[in-house]
Amino acid sequence: MTGSDTYDGLSGAAVAGVLGALRARTPLVHCMTNIVVAGFTANVLLAAGASPAMVENDQESAEFAAAADALLVNLGTLSGERVRAMTGAASAAWAAGTPWVLDPVAVGPLPFRTTLAAELLDHRPTVIRGNPSEVLSLAGAVGAAGRGVDSTADSATAVPSARELAARTGGVVAVSGSVDYITDGTRVWQVHTGHPLMTKVTGTGCALGSLVAACCAVEDSPLVAATAATSILTVAAEVAARRSSGPGSFAVALLDALAGLDESALTEHLDHR
Amino acid sequence: MTGSDTYDGLSGAAVAGVLGALRARTPLVHCMTNIVVAGFTANVLLAAGASPAMVENDQESAEFAAAADALLVNLGTLSGERVRAMTGAASAAWAAGTPWVLDPVAVGPLPFRTTLAAELLDHRPTVIRGNPSEVLSLAGAVGAAGRGVDSTADSATAVPSARELAARTGGVVAVSGSVDYITDGTRVWQVHTGHPLMTKVTGTGCALGSLVAACCAVEDSPLVAATAATSILTVAAEVAARRSSGPGSFAVALLDALAGLDESALTEHLDHR
Amino acid sequence: MTGSDTYDGLSGAAVAGVLGALRARTPLVHCMTNIVVAGFTANVLLAAGASPAMVENDQESAEFAAAADALLVNLGTLSGERVRAMTGAASAAWAAGTPWVLDPVAVGPLPFRTTLAAELLDHRPTVIRGNPSEVLSLAGAVGAAGRGVDSTADSATAVPSARELAARTGGVVAVSGSVDYITDGTRVWQVHTGHPLMTKVTGTGCALGSLVAACCAVEDSPLVAATAATSILTVAAEVAARRSSGPGSFAVALLDALAGLDESALTEHLDHR
Repeated sequence: MTGSDTYDGLSGAAVAGVLGALRARTPLVHCMTNIVVAGFTANVLLAAGASPAMVENDQESAEFAAAADALLVNLGTLSGERVRAMTGAASAAWAAGTPWVLDPVAVGPLPFRTTLAAELLDHRPTVIRGNPSEVLSLAGAVGAAGRGVDSTADSATAVPSARELAARTGGVVAVSGSVDYITDGTRVWQVHTGHPLMTKVTGTGCALGSLVAACCAVEDSPLVAATAATSILTVAAEVAARRSSGPGSFAVALLDALAGLDESALTEHLDHR
Repeated sequence: MTGSDTYDGLSGAAVAGVLGALRARTPLVHCMTNIVVAGFTANVLLAAGASPAMVENDQESAEFAAAADALLVNLGTLSGERVRAMTGAASAAWAAGTPWVLDPVAVGPLPFRTTLAAELLDHRPTVIRGNPSEVLSLAGAVGAAGRGVDSTADSATAVPSARELAARTGGVVAVSGSVDYITDGTRVWQVHTGHPLMTKVTGTGCALGSLVAACCAVEDSPLVAATAATSILTVAAEVAARRSSGPGSFAVALLDALAGLDESALTEHLDHR
Repeated sequence: MTGSDTYDGLSGAAVAGVLGALRARTPLVHCMTNIVVAGFTANVLLAAGASPAMVENDQESAEFAAAADALLVNLGTLSGERVRAMTGAASAAWAAGTPWVLDPVAVGPLPFRTTLAAELLDHRPTVIRGNPSEVLSLAGAVGAAGRGVDSTADSATAVPSARELAARTGGVVAVSGSVDYITDGTRVWQVHTGHPLMTKVTGTGCALGSLVAACCAVEDSPLVAATAATSILTVAAEVAARRSSGPGSFAVALLDALAGLDESALTEHLDHR
């Protein structure tokens, strides 16, 4: 389906190594994200072990991005000033060597942000994380059909576009879905963990983008970092789902599970499927 | 008190019909709302079965409103750009036939937003949802006395103004309170379900506005849609209150209850009082 | 360590007196705060007994600040319009005699907001609440070393700067940490209650700032108000921690605990240590 160079992702031990580094170094993650998920994103980063800080004005964003350990640029709720601030931050991150993640929310149906996302590619995001429709649109594939923040396409169908986009930008592309695919243009890694309740809580995808940024701050390989972040969040989701009776209690349990996640749970969920 | 043409609202079976349509069609609801409640609003819509998307900049809002299945314009935390974006979106929604809901937060004591709300009426909101003070102010009644986002007036006292406002705008007006009144100018329907904990969680009224918009996308009668949305949220609140030990756990349980709501619960709470 | 004029804070009975006044009067607290914590802040104020309202545009903020019972200015996620609106609101609050609280988020490493915070001091904040790095920076102390929203300094080390800042501005300064210090320049009060999980939930410090503002609306002494607010939130945190299994459930339990807090719990936690 997705080619013979598609492999399973990281072992529980490898993911635990990245999570341990995250907790040991508590990287400062500069999040430029939307008003819907900002609080949840900060709580996900704190629960995982990182240190979030949101700075989104055009007077401070470039300076802060250069000093932070990682940057997230999420296009969720744009404004004129946020667009200027994001462009400045992405440019500064690239110049300073700060790893940065682009989350191209709702790119495709809306030309304004589609153009913005294409321009941001010039600043070489370390990782692009999106749903299938967003990745298809950003790669310029024909037939992209998102309708807002949800994706109408299956994640596997976006893998060829993701590989092309990764090869073109020199970065890693992560496609979220019931199966997650992460590619550096050559290799394609899969993550099979996760739970349908993730789609019933706003911001799980956006929070994943922030966690990818955090992992990029402590792990040199963006492919490993993005795969580890995906594994951390989706294993925590499986743990949380067992303790939930709906999307409200699931979101709460997800934060508890992230904070309590250890190598034993990662191994159980990732290696013994 | 409120006239002889005041009746109880919808039966559990009728509300279940609207909820079923919502879950079957998962309408895309364009929410232009405030920074306080954006996350909770999205989670309420997801739990109920709709698909929320927040777009609030003046480059995209009109285009997105025309394409969405419904629009919410909530005046909570205005900014210069949001005001322009909201005006464009409301105008585009009207032109495109997209049903849209106006939530005139804190209209009355603040002249700037009172003027804005009056101007937005030109774009013919399908439904106006507010607390009694906001509805009294928007109708131009003398003696309106809101003091921010809370209402100091009883909902029944706003019913004559609500009827006048509905008749004047050609839309439906929903007044929230311990009893909710929904009117198309002629008929006045009441919803008696609900729980005082709703007033101890920020954004339950705002989330109701978004749910009214979602129901307008799947139900042709705005009177039925607004009454169904009110019934869905307030019955879920009664279910949630039984599982809560305070406002924090209530907000969580409310999302769980919304996701699990079925005709049996709706019938029990709405028909067998 | 912090001088011979450092004393324990308020008794449980004294704190219960302020909390009782808060619930009786439900002061309207105008919150100008950031997109990360706005929802949580509103829920904390509602749970404690106050009435939050967020107005942050430059057309309304000054008028609303003058009419509100208290104002919070939190520098978390600035924008060009928010900066203008905050300056207008602080000025109007001072002129109208509205008590107001400055939360100088991330002041120190970022010159733009450091300058803004210094200018806001001209409008005489009733209380300044910050972490040690922020207070050290605002006081102009050498060696301030914040790195975003977290503090890298121990709260005791900031007490001399806090006293100097309080004496210079004529207000009260509250330094948050594992021990909280609150000073009017002469007296220094300590609050020892609290729980490490508070650092794992975004916005507990920001919410404290809003609660200080609420208490200033019902208690004439800013020193008493700030100490009472700190005691209320930290005792609720101790109660909540017993019912939590991680940061997600802790945040939920904190709201429940705030709503249920009574003199008995305050006495148990504050007087019988």
